[in-house]
Amino acid sequence: MTADPLGATRFPWQQALGARPLDHDRTEFRVWAPNADQLALRIGDSEMPLADEGYGIFSTITSASAGTDYWFVADGVPVPDPASRSQPHGLRGASRVFAAEPAAPLSQRLSLDQLVILELHIGTFSQEGTFRGAIQHLDELAQLGVNAIEVMPVAEFPGARGWGYDGVYISAAQSSYGGPGQFLELIGAAHERGIAVILDVVYNHVGVSGVDALNAFGPYFTGKYGTPWGKAMNYDDELCDPVREWAIQSAEGWIREYGIDGLRLDAIHAIHDSSPEHIVAAITRRVHAADPQAIVILESGLNDANVIRPRDVGGWGADAAWADDFHHALRTLITDERDGYYAEFGRIELLAKAFNRPYVHDGGYSSFRKRRFGAPAQDVAPERFVVFCQDHDQVGNRAFGDRLPPQARPLAAFMTLLSPFTPMLFMGEEYGESAPFQFFSDHIDPKVADATRTGRREEFAAFASFGHDVPDPQALETFENSKLTRVRDPELAQLYAQLIELRGQLPPGDADEIVFDEAARWLRVRRGAFELLASFADQPTSFELAPGTELLLSTHRLAPHPELGWIELQPLSGVLLRIGAV
Amino acid sequence: MTADPLGATRFPWQQALGARPLDHDRTEFRVWAPNADQLALRIGDSEMPLADEGYGIFSTITSASAGTDYWFVADGVPVPDPASRSQPHGLRGASRVFAAEPAAPLSQRLSLDQLVILELHIGTFSQEGTFRGAIQHLDELAQLGVNAIEVMPVAEFPGARGWGYDGVYISAAQSSYGGPGQFLELIGAAHERGIAVILDVVYNHVGVSGVDALNAFGPYFTGKYGTPWGKAMNYDDELCDPVREWAIQSAEGWIREYGIDGLRLDAIHAIHDSSPEHIVAAITRRVHAADPQAIVILESGLNDANVIRPRDVGGWGADAAWADDFHHALRTLITDERDGYYAEFGRIELLAKAFNRPYVHDGGYSSFRKRRFGAPAQDVAPERFVVFCQDHDQVGNRAFGDRLPPQARPLAAFMTLLSPFTPMLFMGEEYGESAPFQFFSDHIDPKVADATRTGRREEFAAFASFGHDVPDPQALETFENSKLTRVRDPELAQLYAQLIELRGQLPPGDADEIVFDEAARWLRVRRGAFELLASFADQPTSFELAPGTELLLSTHRLAPHPELGWIELQPLSGVLLRIGAV
Repeated sequence: MTADPLGATRFPWQQALGARPLDHDRTEFRVWAPNADQLALRIGDSEMPLADEGYGIFSTITSASAGTDYWFVADGVPVPDPASRSQPHGLRGASRVFAAEPAAPLSQRLSLDQLVILELHIGTFSQEGTFRGAIQHLDELAQLGVNAIEVMPVAEFPGARGWGYDGVYISAAQSSYGGPGQFLELIGAAHERGIAVILDVVYNHVGVSGVDALNAFGPYFTGKYGTPWGKAMNYDDELCDPVREWAIQSAEGWIREYGIDGLRLDAIHAIHDSSPEHIVAAITRRVHAADPQAIVILESGLNDANVIRPRDVGGWGADAAWADDFHHALRTLITDERDGYYAEFGRIELLAKAFNRPYVHDGGYSSFRKRRFGAPAQDVAPERFVVFCQDHDQVGNRAFGDRLPPQARPLAAFMTLLSPFTPMLFMGEEYGESAPFQFFSDHIDPKVADATRTGRREEFAAFASFGHDVPDPQALETFENSKLTRVRDPELAQLYAQLIELRGQLPPGDADEIVFDEAARWLRVRRGAFELLASFADQPTSFELAPGTELLLSTHRLAPHPELGWIELQPLSGVLLRIGAV
Repeated sequence: MTADPLGATRFPWQQALGARPLDHDRTEFRVWAPNADQLALRIGDSEMPLADEGYGIFSTITSASAGTDYWFVADGVPVPDPASRSQPHGLRGASRVFAAEPAAPLSQRLSLDQLVILELHIGTFSQEGTFRGAIQHLDELAQLGVNAIEVMPVAEFPGARGWGYDGVYISAAQSSYGGPGQFLELIGAAHERGIAVILDVVYNHVGVSGVDALNAFGPYFTGKYGTPWGKAMNYDDELCDPVREWAIQSAEGWIREYGIDGLRLDAIHAIHDSSPEHIVAAITRRVHAADPQAIVILESGLNDANVIRPRDVGGWGADAAWADDFHHALRTLITDERDGYYAEFGRIELLAKAFNRPYVHDGGYSSFRKRRFGAPAQDVAPERFVVFCQDHDQVGNRAFGDRLPPQARPLAAFMTLLSPFTPMLFMGEEYGESAPFQFFSDHIDPKVADATRTGRREEFAAFASFGHDVPDPQALETFENSKLTRVRDPELAQLYAQLIELRGQLPPGDADEIVFDEAARWLRVRRGAFELLASFADQPTSFELAPGTELLLSTHRLAPHPELGWIELQPLSGVLLRIGAV
């Protein structure tokens, strides 16, 4: 447990926010509401006052139990609890008292370098689109060797479908997914199968549909900074402490009350905070205090590994960070895309660099960003970087949400799963899913719905060929089209199984040697006694092999056999070799 | 020399910006001007093109020498050089090539714990109001024991008079002060007398009168953040690298080209920067590389000592930081003011706390800021904090710019100069100056002048008694009234001399014991064999003394003598004792 650097003083906002059942018929309610002149708790037809604990914190203990619906009434208007743990009637319905019994823990927690993560979206992972619906597909994942699922955001968001990044009630599991009870079932089912659960949490903004509902209570937002998705959360302006605590308790709650094994914090580069302890460092500290083995993964677009360095050297102490550059370096070699930020990639040299540390931008000039970008991270162990060849952004934020083209998939998987980094798959990738993952939403505010629809269309207007065919995010079919068909490409599925198995045999840590030929478009990586050989050429390429070299895996059928002293790789293919003892 | 964490790559913007004489008749000119479609260098009647070095950097070598006036002509409009070292015709005149020969260095550089700093404003320090005019008063300072002057900003600002915080040409010494040549004279004269020179530099914004002139060249500003004084500098947005370098080279230049001994960076809490290395850390690193003994002092309003921690624990590596809380804790006890942020002070306990580490707000709740504020700094040596009982802000930002009332001065000086922190005096304080230091300006843009005048009036409108009597900042007499009269209070002047001398005998480092009595309003501080005894009571107070105690200094006349075993302190007075060996 790491000490709070600001000392042990307890403030009222540090008590549990929201509704906490104390025993079978009494529940404690606590809310921060400095903006409300009049405040009451409403249960059924009765309204009751709350006691002032100071600093804008109000609380009461009353007869209520798990399952009781309630509102806070702020200046006459019933509003859901900002710290709600359940919104069974949706974003603008009553909150419900929920008593979480943490899921049974994993029998064995895995270290970062053992993890194979699969990112999934509850709404489209199963036909049912619910937490419970997801359970039936866990056996298949476990069998494949996936030992962690990273669940896209489940905090209550507007409507019945969406990616989840416009959630509002950051501690309530989405009602249309089955709510918190079903979420607990899923966590328990995953744990039974040896699968850890990592939850994607969004603390950099809330969906615009929730801004008024939070402002009814207090200044949750600040005008000091902006985010690309709406108002910045108030983490360092006047009255910020209870907002910080609201976010921290949410993070703690997922770990402590649900038994979740880790969190993935969305877009932390969009959180500006001049406090002595950045809110992300504070969340990380408190999560580790709640469960020292819990993993905190950060999505940071800054290519600055300081966020995953230890606190004693000034880091934020998080366990791992996404590294998108690895994806870009890889994708541009297998699809030849060069739009936008892909323009800076497309050379074997950069993938070779990314295979050492995945921040290709590590202090050099980025022509896309028009500035020097990133910083070196050689001191940070490779498993602290999460890499992928597909993810919800890189698939879903394409105009049509199309996955990697089939011919690119084997080599993409090969490079990702045999890298020294922590690999993450995107649901369906592991068996060659053909359904797209498109951008969909179900905004309940017509203005927000229109803005989302128009924004999406304009974003891709530059690509003239798309015309007005970009899928309408609000249309039900856009969501339905994105559901996994679960039609398998058996050969690819087998490759994934083999790769995951062989990955477990590779020594963890840095590659021992990385060499490449830009003109011939190949890359060789030695990891202990193993060698990855990958060809990005558009024609077959031959390689000499040292005597005694053993072929462990090939992404494509091979002829002739390597015993002959040489090997011919097909375009976009890779082989894993064991180097002979000479 | 500290390594650049981003490696050794050289970019064109890392070459010297501005005008650099190469020999007696050739000068190299370099400017960053991505916003200009057409760019030329104008000297006299001739215009010449510049060569494109890439990244928006243009340069040329031409016949020109120190003293040559020049303009850059951006899209047909002549504009001063953003990196100008001399603006002899003012903010909107031509720039002039200047060849600085660094002043002869100090024969001996002092460590932080030896420094006694005096903050001065060139325009009002002497009747002449020039760098040269200041020289005549240095002997007096040296004699007193002042061994460093901190010169309020001298970067070229609008008009002939002003505090200097709305400067624009951050590398040019103010023309109305005598320009860079006279500044070098002052530095040399100070060094001859054993006085170090610390320069106040403003890198958090530029005066609004200069925004267009800088924008003519490139995006010096960003809309990502704001400051209380205008647009935020672009230190982390697109094309930020040359802006960063423009600030860094300015800091380096003062050290390297002028031989200045240290910088005081203004309001660094107003600089938001999400780069891997914060611009303030980068400036500090480069200043230390230019002169490892140079001192970097930060004005930070965040009460977060991380900025003065070493880089290897995640700090910014600066040497010292201002600590305003010490002033507030002290002032409220001797003047009974409780307005604004003073409301949180006024207890002996808080001065006792401030005597240990001067961040009184070190993580507790600040009712003024409505949040927890600051962080502990026990690990940071006390001399790394600069404290004062008067400074340009605490005097000048009062409605009438009045100094501490006479009856408060002796005890204020006693507490400040005998503290374990680095003390800073405000010019004139050391001999009991009676002239106020008022807020004055000489804005050349009528709109800015009006806004300044109105802003000042409105700021103090709440204090009904002031009516419209608040001095007009634009009036010449406001400036003239602020000039030192140099009328001495001999008794106070002698006290300052004694305090500075005795300060040198106190052991450096933490106080050994700090005790106080809130009701009786006294504070005792033991530092080695010495004891400070201070009374904030409004009536005489008696103290018992241990046998053998020796009286070293008293802020007021004393009777009877302490040999008698007790001592009676007058209201607002202090004594320094040497504890007897028992």
